[in-house]
Amino acid sequence: MTEVRTLHPTTDQYAFAFGGREPLLTVAPGTIVELSTEDCFAGKVRSVDDLPSVVCEFPFLNPVTGPIAVEGAEVGDTLTVHFVEITPARDWAASSTFPHFGALTTTHATAMLHEALEERVWIYELDVAAGVCRFQARRTDFSVELPLDPMHGTVGVAPAAGEVLMSITPAAHGGNMDTPEMRAGVTAYFPVNVPGGMLSLGDGHARQGEGEVCGTAVEAAMRTVVVVDLVKGGAPVSPRIESDGFLMTTGSARPLEDAYRMSQHDLVGWTGSLLGLEQLDAYQLVSQAGLAPAGNVVDTNYTMVAKLPKTLLGATTAYDGLHDRLRAVGADYLRTR
Amino acid sequence: MTEVRTLHPTTDQYAFAFGGREPLLTVAPGTIVELSTEDCFAGKVRSVDDLPSVVCEFPFLNPVTGPIAVEGAEVGDTLTVHFVEITPARDWAASSTFPHFGALTTTHATAMLHEALEERVWIYELDVAAGVCRFQARRTDFSVELPLDPMHGTVGVAPAAGEVLMSITPAAHGGNMDTPEMRAGVTAYFPVNVPGGMLSLGDGHARQGEGEVCGTAVEAAMRTVVVVDLVKGGAPVSPRIESDGFLMTTGSARPLEDAYRMSQHDLVGWTGSLLGLEQLDAYQLVSQAGLAPAGNVVDTNYTMVAKLPKTLLGATTAYDGLHDRLRAVGADYLRTR
Amino acid sequence: MTEVRTLHPTTDQYAFAFGGREPLLTVAPGTIVELSTEDCFAGKVRSVDDLPSVVCEFPFLNPVTGPIAVEGAEVGDTLTVHFVEITPARDWAASSTFPHFGALTTTHATAMLHEALEERVWIYELDVAAGVCRFQARRTDFSVELPLDPMHGTVGVAPAAGEVLMSITPAAHGGNMDTPEMRAGVTAYFPVNVPGGMLSLGDGHARQGEGEVCGTAVEAAMRTVVVVDLVKGGAPVSPRIESDGFLMTTGSARPLEDAYRMSQHDLVGWTGSLLGLEQLDAYQLVSQAGLAPAGNVVDTNYTMVAKLPKTLLGATTAYDGLHDRLRAVGADYLRTR
Amino acid sequence: MTEVRTLHPTTDQYAFAFGGREPLLTVAPGTIVELSTEDCFAGKVRSVDDLPSVVCEFPFLNPVTGPIAVEGAEVGDTLTVHFVEITPARDWAASSTFPHFGALTTTHATAMLHEALEERVWIYELDVAAGVCRFQARRTDFSVELPLDPMHGTVGVAPAAGEVLMSITPAAHGGNMDTPEMRAGVTAYFPVNVPGGMLSLGDGHARQGEGEVCGTAVEAAMRTVVVVDLVKGGAPVSPRIESDGFLMTTGSARPLEDAYRMSQHDLVGWTGSLLGLEQLDAYQLVSQAGLAPAGNVVDTNYTMVAKLPKTLLGATTAYDGLHDRLRAVGADYLRTR
Repeated sequence: MTEVRTLHPTTDQYAFAFGGREPLLTVAPGTIVELSTEDCFAGKVRSVDDLPSVVCEFPFLNPVTGPIAVEGAEVGDTLTVHFVEITPARDWAASSTFPHFGALTTTHATAMLHEALEERVWIYELDVAAGVCRFQARRTDFSVELPLDPMHGTVGVAPAAGEVLMSITPAAHGGNMDTPEMRAGVTAYFPVNVPGGMLSLGDGHARQGEGEVCGTAVEAAMRTVVVVDLVKGGAPVSPRIESDGFLMTTGSARPLEDAYRMSQHDLVGWTGSLLGLEQLDAYQLVSQAGLAPAGNVVDTNYTMVAKLPKTLLGATTAYDGLHDRLRAVGADYLRTR
Repeated sequence: MTEVRTLHPTTDQYAFAFGGREPLLTVAPGTIVELSTEDCFAGKVRSVDDLPSVVCEFPFLNPVTGPIAVEGAEVGDTLTVHFVEITPARDWAASSTFPHFGALTTTHATAMLHEALEERVWIYELDVAAGVCRFQARRTDFSVELPLDPMHGTVGVAPAAGEVLMSITPAAHGGNMDTPEMRAGVTAYFPVNVPGGMLSLGDGHARQGEGEVCGTAVEAAMRTVVVVDLVKGGAPVSPRIESDGFLMTTGSARPLEDAYRMSQHDLVGWTGSLLGLEQLDAYQLVSQAGLAPAGNVVDTNYTMVAKLPKTLLGATTAYDGLHDRLRAVGADYLRTR
Repeated sequence: MTEVRTLHPTTDQYAFAFGGREPLLTVAPGTIVELSTEDCFAGKVRSVDDLPSVVCEFPFLNPVTGPIAVEGAEVGDTLTVHFVEITPARDWAASSTFPHFGALTTTHATAMLHEALEERVWIYELDVAAGVCRFQARRTDFSVELPLDPMHGTVGVAPAAGEVLMSITPAAHGGNMDTPEMRAGVTAYFPVNVPGGMLSLGDGHARQGEGEVCGTAVEAAMRTVVVVDLVKGGAPVSPRIESDGFLMTTGSARPLEDAYRMSQHDLVGWTGSLLGLEQLDAYQLVSQAGLAPAGNVVDTNYTMVAKLPKTLLGATTAYDGLHDRLRAVGADYLRTR
Repeated sequence: MTEVRTLHPTTDQYAFAFGGREPLLTVAPGTIVELSTEDCFAGKVRSVDDLPSVVCEFPFLNPVTGPIAVEGAEVGDTLTVHFVEITPARDWAASSTFPHFGALTTTHATAMLHEALEERVWIYELDVAAGVCRFQARRTDFSVELPLDPMHGTVGVAPAAGEVLMSITPAAHGGNMDTPEMRAGVTAYFPVNVPGGMLSLGDGHARQGEGEVCGTAVEAAMRTVVVVDLVKGGAPVSPRIESDGFLMTTGSARPLEDAYRMSQHDLVGWTGSLLGLEQLDAYQLVSQAGLAPAGNVVDTNYTMVAKLPKTLLGATTAYDGLHDRLRAVGADYLRTR
């Protein structure tokens, strides 16, 4: 019987960084964890009048739940997280522009002489039962329903080399990759850089466009269920994701072509390894069969995702079929709770 | 009755640039054109022993068919191309690595001290009836079928300012954008920069991964049918594409985040214009609902695509419903030929 | 006795592109050419009230003088230009911001949602005898003298592959590199891509900061004297420059690190070739001894310059001492005219 | 009389990160500190046979001396370091290529399919009295003297937001900017992000080319004397440097044009503030008078420097003449020790 643990941080237990923290919870590999996460505004943006730059205080942005230590996780291992369920915790979510943040505005790094764009908040009504959220324009009456597609923008482990990185940064340890692929039903693989690995997650999105162009998604507190597991050895260079249909690799860097290169480089290597292909043969296969959606183009590093359909794998499975086994564990949990 | 014209260039009629050429064909708006295109190797790579750097001669790479002048097209108008059908002309296609070309290798621009990667050719068997092509590894016995998804890597018009650009360059005039979205069933919109617009196309791909990471796709000569049409005024900044399901914009630039910015900027503007949204409201909607796949990350400019589901538009149509009308023209053609 | 020719284009003889033109002048190698160039505004910005976007007409920006064909220049040769003298033709020069142009503003490529920065013109008084130009602030009384350091922003030849490129684009053919290193006393080396090479130049700057951050320099019409010469073979990948003190290579690309890579790659190769160094030894020497100033970070490609002090060369000379010989020819001309 | 303190860390006292450490020394503002730093290889590369990847252990690279806490330094203040003297501690220094590091090689971020370049070490003889170091090629007999120009590649303070960053990363807190401008005689200004500021420095270079293209400079242990001071308030966005001749700003980011933008943006603001110029007037002045050399184009962030000649300032001084006062303190120290 799979062990089930819970992790519901109090307000002062949220972390705002990866690395440098004692675990809030320690679990054995294979444990199911029911947990809650706050939104990226730490829950302080509750109406269109709550401007983030007023109600939020730097650096207390993008709270994450964790860290969760995994028993037996050693440097070089692969910490595995299977997302069983990601459910919005409230019937609303918030989004906003934010001064000097986003892809189509002057920022600290892409520094320009323009005044910041207007800061503006949008509140979305969520209807979990119907599976939709509602966008309401602020300057006109236009309104439209969008499909719910809940996911976590921020999932990661403690970085290598003793670094402590703000939770808004995506890098080799994961972090704020902001890819809509991190949804329920997928399994994510992270390198273990410190004993226990130290998994944290947060930044739930009721849905998100690829690239997250304005800098924020439909930001929502979440009730999330994961299976936390461990593969001995095999630490990936950057986080990998597996869904029922796809193998996925990620790269987080600037410029965006370097993020693309990192993700494709790892997918070529992974594909070659699984199929016994020589490197250039794997390069060729990925070139013709791969997908390459943007994750985010707004954070301190940009993230690209590389995807390969698992139909190409035939009977071959990644990580010895771990995704399917965790999928079954999740299904069993949902059926029996 | 829609007029049908044909354009089958002789070997010495192919062009290798956009701009600076007299039209091979002049048509009235609304004309159907049946045409043929050669592959990016000018048909000279026919076996795994035909190394492109040996059998091809710079700059006679990436031949395009055209230009096709459109009667009445004036600077500032929108030249429209609807793809009715794109069919491989042979039962094989070729791909290759090419020295100093591709995303994961030293190139002329990303100049490094490494020796070039090995140049290698792959020949794909195409089965148009079955809708598949077959990848055969060169160093092992691995082989796998991939779905056919024929498209044109290179479609564009004469550039502005009297420029003549090699056909391998994607930019504001279109050109070698290398996005798999340029498949049968879509309508593409280009700015008219010179009288007649001067449409050319080529570089057929039996299929292509997003990003075209090794630098070449499954390169195939094509038999293609298009409807060429004209919208007075309204020239887009960069090419746009419309499918049954999506509005799409493109950006071609370096670094890749600038290509992303261009594509998203135009999608925000287009969305705002169609739905009567104030700019930041459109920015917000695109942020949550848009997709952002890579086109190419290997050419002289990189290309990103921004996509918005047309379900968000309600009854609103782009270009006054032109895509649907051209779709119907194409369907009629296919039914009655 | 060195032949002296003159080239003073009429208004309608200026070109606005590299490539695709018949020569205005054909000279034998070693010829001195006295020529005149207009400023980048085509002389139309003459007071602070002449806004470029009003008085100039796209694409009639950045006029160049030429092309000058060199007898005997064949593809693969090296066209050589020694700058004997660059003198402002008027006692004033102009600079400006320009909407959607410059490094610290939204542009077509770095597309953002901001309104364009204010368009503003500055007129500089030039005192050639005193060797200074005067900056006068527009919004306050502040005024300061800056040293004159006349140079040409745009120097190049016809591009390869039959391309015709706007004169504002820097690339492998040279063009609008906008580096202050292109001053009197230097020799520049260009690849010959078409018979005759087809040298053109313009875009004189009374002085320019590195990077040309606002997008324009102190723009001045010039009276310029050059020696045009030819080296058989040895075409460089990108333009090179030699001064009395430095070997210089250039790279023009985006992102800026690719321009840096191109320039450094060529300097490593050139250094290794001149000193008989194995590649990594040359890489090491350039790493410790080289300089790397920005040329421009505003044009359609960015330009970086790599510089190596000639003191490291000992008795070795580049191009068999051509720079010194042309220097002597120039000195003789100045002494005897 | 200026207080003089010493800081000579034992081997196990070196730090390898900025942030998260207790001070090794606490000083009052205005204190002179005599200190020693190890080289970036932690002193373990002592001959051409000591390959860094063998003798060094990640992450114990690039040791820094510190942190030094400054009494009274509060968040938002400006920590000031004046470099009185930087002297190589040994009569040799080392440089190397390093696998997957450098500008002209595949790296973790610019990920390619090439094998790593050869790892090779160069040992330089230093003659401090003569002011030269000697480069000796490894594959040929070529040898040449280069001028000594000692500097610190790594100088910085604890980052904001509780971050702990590896010492090889340059960012807003300073760190591994690797600019040759950080030489004796300059004053550097850093933002105080935590109480005490927490200054650390290391990575001495006997000299360095701009960009540090191969990834390492002429790496040397140093004996260094600094004056550590404090300006209340006025924390710069990124480190600034002042020499007798120039105001300098820095930007550390990727891509390189963003580093350029950051440095130029701050120089425009600083110039405007000092001279009472409206923003666009300052933009114009910097555009014509500024210099823009590369710092590094190899580290986890790239660094650009923007420089303005102080001759433009007239009687105006930065930070109320602090640089001149610290220069006098340094001169007095050197005269009287």
